[in-house]
Amino acid sequence: MGKKVNFGKLLHGGDYNPEQWLESPEILDKDIAYFKKAKINEVSLGIFSWSVLEPEEGKFHFEWMEEIIDRLYENGISTILATPSGARPKWMADKYPEVLRMDETRRRMLYGTRHNHCYTSPVYREKTRIMNQELARRFGPHPGVIAWHISNEYGGECHCPLCQEEFRKWIQNRYQTVERLNHAWATTFWSHKYNRFDQVESPSSIGEPGLHGLNLDWRRFVTDRTLDFIRHEIAAIRNGGSDKPTTINMMYDFRELNYHKLADVIDFVSWDNYPQWHKKEEILTARDSGMQHDIMRSLRKEPFFLMESCPSATNWQPVSKLKKPGMLHAASMQAVAHGSDSVLYFQLRQSQGSSEKFHGAVIDHYGGEDTRVFGEVSQVGESLRRLGEVAGTMPKAKVAVLFDWESRWAMEDAQGPRNDGLFYKESVLKSYHAFRNLGLDVDMIDMEQPLEDYKIVAAPMLYMFRAGFEEKARRFVSEGGKFILTYWSGIVDETDLCFLEGTPHGLMDVMGLRSTEIDGLYDGEVNSGVPVEGNTLHMAHTYACSHLCDLVRLSTAEAVLVYGSDFYKGMPALTKNNFGEGQAYYICADFDQDFYDDFYGKIVKEARIELPVEKIPAGVEVTRRSSKDAEYLFVQNFNREPVNMDLPIGEYQILLGDYNGTVARFGTVVLKKKL
Amino acid sequence: MGKKVNFGKLLHGGDYNPEQWLESPEILDKDIAYFKKAKINEVSLGIFSWSVLEPEEGKFHFEWMEEIIDRLYENGISTILATPSGARPKWMADKYPEVLRMDETRRRMLYGTRHNHCYTSPVYREKTRIMNQELARRFGPHPGVIAWHISNEYGGECHCPLCQEEFRKWIQNRYQTVERLNHAWATTFWSHKYNRFDQVESPSSIGEPGLHGLNLDWRRFVTDRTLDFIRHEIAAIRNGGSDKPTTINMMYDFRELNYHKLADVIDFVSWDNYPQWHKKEEILTARDSGMQHDIMRSLRKEPFFLMESCPSATNWQPVSKLKKPGMLHAASMQAVAHGSDSVLYFQLRQSQGSSEKFHGAVIDHYGGEDTRVFGEVSQVGESLRRLGEVAGTMPKAKVAVLFDWESRWAMEDAQGPRNDGLFYKESVLKSYHAFRNLGLDVDMIDMEQPLEDYKIVAAPMLYMFRAGFEEKARRFVSEGGKFILTYWSGIVDETDLCFLEGTPHGLMDVMGLRSTEIDGLYDGEVNSGVPVEGNTLHMAHTYACSHLCDLVRLSTAEAVLVYGSDFYKGMPALTKNNFGEGQAYYICADFDQDFYDDFYGKIVKEARIELPVEKIPAGVEVTRRSSKDAEYLFVQNFNREPVNMDLPIGEYQILLGDYNGTVARFGTVVLKKKL
Amino acid sequence: MGKKVNFGKLLHGGDYNPEQWLESPEILDKDIAYFKKAKINEVSLGIFSWSVLEPEEGKFHFEWMEEIIDRLYENGISTILATPSGARPKWMADKYPEVLRMDETRRRMLYGTRHNHCYTSPVYREKTRIMNQELARRFGPHPGVIAWHISNEYGGECHCPLCQEEFRKWIQNRYQTVERLNHAWATTFWSHKYNRFDQVESPSSIGEPGLHGLNLDWRRFVTDRTLDFIRHEIAAIRNGGSDKPTTINMMYDFRELNYHKLADVIDFVSWDNYPQWHKKEEILTARDSGMQHDIMRSLRKEPFFLMESCPSATNWQPVSKLKKPGMLHAASMQAVAHGSDSVLYFQLRQSQGSSEKFHGAVIDHYGGEDTRVFGEVSQVGESLRRLGEVAGTMPKAKVAVLFDWESRWAMEDAQGPRNDGLFYKESVLKSYHAFRNLGLDVDMIDMEQPLEDYKIVAAPMLYMFRAGFEEKARRFVSEGGKFILTYWSGIVDETDLCFLEGTPHGLMDVMGLRSTEIDGLYDGEVNSGVPVEGNTLHMAHTYACSHLCDLVRLSTAEAVLVYGSDFYKGMPALTKNNFGEGQAYYICADFDQDFYDDFYGKIVKEARIELPVEKIPAGVEVTRRSSKDAEYLFVQNFNREPVNMDLPIGEYQILLGDYNGTVARFGTVVLKKKL
Repeated sequence: MGKKVNFGKLLHGGDYNPEQWLESPEILDKDIAYFKKAKINEVSLGIFSWSVLEPEEGKFHFEWMEEIIDRLYENGISTILATPSGARPKWMADKYPEVLRMDETRRRMLYGTRHNHCYTSPVYREKTRIMNQELARRFGPHPGVIAWHISNEYGGECHCPLCQEEFRKWIQNRYQTVERLNHAWATTFWSHKYNRFDQVESPSSIGEPGLHGLNLDWRRFVTDRTLDFIRHEIAAIRNGGSDKPTTINMMYDFRELNYHKLADVIDFVSWDNYPQWHKKEEILTARDSGMQHDIMRSLRKEPFFLMESCPSATNWQPVSKLKKPGMLHAASMQAVAHGSDSVLYFQLRQSQGSSEKFHGAVIDHYGGEDTRVFGEVSQVGESLRRLGEVAGTMPKAKVAVLFDWESRWAMEDAQGPRNDGLFYKESVLKSYHAFRNLGLDVDMIDMEQPLEDYKIVAAPMLYMFRAGFEEKARRFVSEGGKFILTYWSGIVDETDLCFLEGTPHGLMDVMGLRSTEIDGLYDGEVNSGVPVEGNTLHMAHTYACSHLCDLVRLSTAEAVLVYGSDFYKGMPALTKNNFGEGQAYYICADFDQDFYDDFYGKIVKEARIELPVEKIPAGVEVTRRSSKDAEYLFVQNFNREPVNMDLPIGEYQILLGDYNGTVARFGTVVLKKKL
Repeated sequence: MGKKVNFGKLLHGGDYNPEQWLESPEILDKDIAYFKKAKINEVSLGIFSWSVLEPEEGKFHFEWMEEIIDRLYENGISTILATPSGARPKWMADKYPEVLRMDETRRRMLYGTRHNHCYTSPVYREKTRIMNQELARRFGPHPGVIAWHISNEYGGECHCPLCQEEFRKWIQNRYQTVERLNHAWATTFWSHKYNRFDQVESPSSIGEPGLHGLNLDWRRFVTDRTLDFIRHEIAAIRNGGSDKPTTINMMYDFRELNYHKLADVIDFVSWDNYPQWHKKEEILTARDSGMQHDIMRSLRKEPFFLMESCPSATNWQPVSKLKKPGMLHAASMQAVAHGSDSVLYFQLRQSQGSSEKFHGAVIDHYGGEDTRVFGEVSQVGESLRRLGEVAGTMPKAKVAVLFDWESRWAMEDAQGPRNDGLFYKESVLKSYHAFRNLGLDVDMIDMEQPLEDYKIVAAPMLYMFRAGFEEKARRFVSEGGKFILTYWSGIVDETDLCFLEGTPHGLMDVMGLRSTEIDGLYDGEVNSGVPVEGNTLHMAHTYACSHLCDLVRLSTAEAVLVYGSDFYKGMPALTKNNFGEGQAYYICADFDQDFYDDFYGKIVKEARIELPVEKIPAGVEVTRRSSKDAEYLFVQNFNREPVNMDLPIGEYQILLGDYNGTVARFGTVVLKKKL
Repeated sequence: MGKKVNFGKLLHGGDYNPEQWLESPEILDKDIAYFKKAKINEVSLGIFSWSVLEPEEGKFHFEWMEEIIDRLYENGISTILATPSGARPKWMADKYPEVLRMDETRRRMLYGTRHNHCYTSPVYREKTRIMNQELARRFGPHPGVIAWHISNEYGGECHCPLCQEEFRKWIQNRYQTVERLNHAWATTFWSHKYNRFDQVESPSSIGEPGLHGLNLDWRRFVTDRTLDFIRHEIAAIRNGGSDKPTTINMMYDFRELNYHKLADVIDFVSWDNYPQWHKKEEILTARDSGMQHDIMRSLRKEPFFLMESCPSATNWQPVSKLKKPGMLHAASMQAVAHGSDSVLYFQLRQSQGSSEKFHGAVIDHYGGEDTRVFGEVSQVGESLRRLGEVAGTMPKAKVAVLFDWESRWAMEDAQGPRNDGLFYKESVLKSYHAFRNLGLDVDMIDMEQPLEDYKIVAAPMLYMFRAGFEEKARRFVSEGGKFILTYWSGIVDETDLCFLEGTPHGLMDVMGLRSTEIDGLYDGEVNSGVPVEGNTLHMAHTYACSHLCDLVRLSTAEAVLVYGSDFYKGMPALTKNNFGEGQAYYICADFDQDFYDDFYGKIVKEARIELPVEKIPAGVEVTRRSSKDAEYLFVQNFNREPVNMDLPIGEYQILLGDYNGTVARFGTVVLKKKL
């Protein structure tokens, strides 16, 4: 674990590739002037610069980079310096083909794109080590360099013989004996028993695609392999003499890598956010982005950094929709509201050619500052300057939603109750949305993180119960927590073996029920949850549900809602069980959002969690960050019209934005209260 | 051809893999108790057990199997014993890569899944021979073993050099000279003439995908190759000293293999049925399943065995829908009604891991008998016990529908009048449905089977006329049969060469017409058939048609319906021709079901075929099985509500089910009449 | 550049493969009788005949061909003789695997299909050279042979080592230094800089798929490689002593090859046209076909030849729809109206087997002449005979639409404002349609062709400005032309590098504006163009637009329409700028057809272009061809009903068709005026 990072201000800047413009010094001059005008105080340098830094094997060209860093520093602009391992030069692939990945059909890739290198290759590791060490030696001491950006958007996997070898070692280390391996992966099924560890091969569409235990361990291995490479990169930086903080830039809803593991070896979390604004109601996009922000913040329970975002339209989404006036500011402020200490862009200057040449930038091909986008970026710069004091502060979440990579891997790999769509992420989002509608800050945690800090924990579709989770949940409830579990939970253990003797495994007494069957509904099919007269939650409405309906048998739980139709009409659809000092709730079916809003509203009230604002109009998001001295209340109107709302203006002072009973379209108001 | 198999009772049981639970003897104990409770009298053992039976090359472990078979037998439960060739152990693939298939791009598969072995590989054949022979030697004499289940769900194909060699021999054997080969495949087109047989290669998406004659012969070869392997497996059993009957388990609407050929070398037909109940009206699903049952029964014109079915939901369909109460019983009884002598399940106990761990089972992960599914299975067991005497009986079909694998292969491979969809199977199903609506049992035959047993034969879309078929059809009509042919029939010969000088080839005089052109209709486009005044069939309604419209020129036939629109308005759409003692009908277009119902109703009446029940309400299926002593009338209500109907209760006694003028939702009534 | 080809008549005939029927001489006899009856005066021979011409290496069999050509010639039928390189014999692939292509994953294809040979392979070139030279030697002097049909429908590409080598040479030749290459392809992006030319590899989905400059040059290289092979084929013909004219048959909307380059080395252009008639309104299909005809005619600004068309339905489209009576005649006459000197078919006699056995033909499997299709073909033959004098005449287009292969390649490869669909061809078609609705003949030119012959030039979505184009357009406008440019134009240079300092590059003063941003609209989203009061074009209606909306800043231009909604409401949507003697118009968004009709109507009127007919009813197409002596006015009614219209019957005489104030459904009237 690294240090807590706080630069004492909010960063504003982003990816910058001056190596594309070395032949045009006048452009570089202009850029610095523009940066200052837009209150840019940071640039991310060196991402994908390898072929300029080391154009031939062993020949390093660092002068241009030094000059840039110097000049930026002279102008008050810091540098986050990247290691260039996100894309290797062609000479390396030509000379050492082992640096190229093999895909799952065991086909060696050709040179091209980026992120296409074997993490195991000794050559690639050595080349990366040398490069990183050199960079650290040369630029680590530079006062302008404030942090290390390790590689870029780690992802992908390699199936080459070297990686197979590592995978076998990993498996052997995990299971020790072949018997244990065979048991864990249930290899008796279809005669797939192994006699020796060296028989293990990675999953393949032309070999073994359906051995779930293998698939799941492969995903874990890929995370560990990536982690190992990140460690290797960081070690080279440290060996080069620099102890400045490191980060990797993570991605939206990225299933491939368990970010909880990766977050452990860096010093701060950063990520790249590219929502498709204006495609649906803005508040829905904001909720989706917000949940990702909260996942990032919860990884280390520290402020995170928005490492990339687009000042205009991306060029790789299906439709490159312009951000309407004010949207960039709103989206940028939302990141800060959720715990970001930066708003950085990809990219400061648009590249002239290749695959991202039409990706939005602070400075576009036209090259002038008299553009709408430059104006909006400058406005963000000014707002960040005014909010500088929130750097380092954090929300204090009283509620959490469980969102677990490993469980998701297993659940989405298994063929089960609904191969046409389980809607896991959507289900998680419904819980998140319901909490956020009340103005509550939410932590997004995995099964390894502690529960005791929260008053309410929701665990939607927690298919896998990792070792120890049942005990943790049981303790949480018995000590007074409110725990919400749903259909399709507690089904398998860590190796994806089904629990015997009833589910949700280990929590049947806590929940007061047993799940007996689960019905998959065809697209378009619906059922409903009808309130039981006199239910102790005072639920009074009927709610539609779809996709999956769990049929449970109650022991001690109370049926709050029952199904409205089909052969299980009258069977429980929502239950409540008192256990110890707390309550355990079980949602049996995939209900619509209105159910979550009503149900979570009642539980939050029961839990006596204080709400930041009495009544939040639809489309408005309220969030808080706090230091020991002050609390900051962010109010953001994501409606396309101004909205009237009461803010506790007496207790707070306005730090940012205009408020006179109304918050503007896409407007942000930040209030501050001294503590 | 083998013996006619009759176990003197209806079997109830299914796939059982105790080798997955050898470490938990208490589970095996419980299972036997459960089986007895559910009136299970059979288990299918050893499917996919190779890696337990021969964990290392040449080291056999049969004790566990012997113990299981003994204990089952002691408890009155018989065993159908499988050869384990459906999946090979990993050690074999590692040591002998030749056992792995090559796909059509000539890529050797990696080890994995099942059904992935080359049928030609001498090693695989030898390993299979040894295994089967050992099994036969050891278990053949066991009184508990009643039959052999050869491998599992044969399918797939291999393009390895060994198979290419076999293919060339097969081609040479078929055509004798290269000239005949070149003529048959029309290789002059696009310069593809062969000079020698050793130039022939199997079809490939990266080579020759569009030489229809090659594709068609490849399909025939794959069937023959599979057949040869089945023969090899059975020979090993026989060499091991066992002469107990053999079967293979076939699959739903399985185009890859011509099951008529495979049925010849086994002793009884069995198949695996997994309908998607509750997705559309139950009667539609029942018709679709029923037609498959009838295909299976018609292969050998003997009772078949339902080898697999799901007691609950499968885990591999798009949506895993639970069977509603009563559905399992109805579906199980339908199999028996159509000629099955068994209801067997995949699976008796759910596996704990791997790709089918969520497939429904008699005993699920929970492991108790107090489940809804176990109760319904027990009910099926009781019904099968009460129906025991129908074992060995057969329906006596007076009508048949032609459904020919080879014609289908050729038709669906050719680019022709509608590449967006020919709707062959749907067209066959319309004829089937119309007969079944009248309560008639239907044989589903191919072009090699005799016609003379039937009063009516329908031949929808019989694209290919195999050698001799024209004569057979001509004789059938001239001797008084009623023959129904449709658009897109009699177009090509056995090698997929187009007939010259008019179609339907060889039957233009029998049909009294010639087909001149065929129009493809775009999706959504419709035409209609309008009755001709005074038509001798007394057709009086107008019917919609779509997809394909054949434009025919009449010689002796009468136009019964004519087209209602387009430039061929007024041209024949349905015709009738008297020929010899019989009648030949030609359906020119793809009409809706109502046309088939009316038209077939008239023909059946004309043919004076006796109907089992006067009036069958919608959604009800009526079927019969007979021995020389008795007739059994099955009445099944597939409606979601009870239905009133008159049954000939005087002539019959009730053998199963409740009837008081009403048949229950999903209810089955079996009546018996002594002959 | 070759000679202008005029056979003094319109050709009628098509592809003929008698080598498929050598064993049936009676069929060949019948064919010639049929041909004469249908007024067929040409056959295309030898396409795909290699395996008959050279069944074994070095053994040539030309006698059958000679006999056919003789007999055809004796019967007044000419031969266009093909080189057989469109498909090679199997013996060649077996002996020389290098003739087989490698796909972009570097996988060697197996033998099969057609058009699957490496254009670089020395063996294939040598075999082709020998074959062509032999054919030329033997048949070149034959009076029945009137032209050479080089190979067939060139297409595809090869990535084998030999082709890689050629590609590297091509690149080196183009860029001379690696520095220039790196600059042109912007290889600094993602570290893809080359050190040497021998590092260059072709694009690949498993290597480099997104380097736009590479992709673009690869497309150019593939055109040049094909061109080189065509030159090689023609040289062999010439070396064989024949100087008869050569052609290649091109295809519909074929993006792969820049036909402008290919047209340069042949003597006349021909193409294969297979519209899907009756799928939508006939006039829409006619416009789409018509635009392709005009592209073909504009390649060399000479009459072209319709080399293939289907007398009935094809067998490879999704639905094989019959041509309704009269449609074949209308479609055939449309080709002539647009400048074709032939109507030829694929195919004269249907093949009996293989992949195109159900493709429509003049003589089908039935083999008689008493078919509807034969009758319609004969009618076309008669009309062509009567129109013989139009051979060699041309339209005189006053308007042109720019349609540029290279710009399209680049635009459709780039990820930009709308990856879900740019609708480039649709946009071009809107301009074309608007001109054609007025009865104007249209040239379809690329950026290399001159503009000065036209009064109006429309350049929709001209993404790339190739070197010199700005100057050409500037001169055109300043000298009085009317130039129409649209959104997403002038963005990149020839190497797909973005222009800096504003777009449309080099024409901002001519257009009087600068494009600042472009908004992508989601499917279903619309905006509108609202007329500006007092606009000098007198536009008075509001028009819907979708997909893309360009936001422009005006300098000297006038806003004619402005946007009706979104944040850019009130910003220009259509502009006009006076520049020099001419006018430049800028269409900012993807408007519906009604806008184009109104807008182009006004400009044409302003340009005082004479219209052939005062008022053209909807669904009618009017076209003209002229010699120095006469003008021919073609009037075609593509409506499904007869249409009333006034024709200038006084000035003209009727050369073909019936006219009495009405033109029949699918009717063609050709009027002639002496000049």
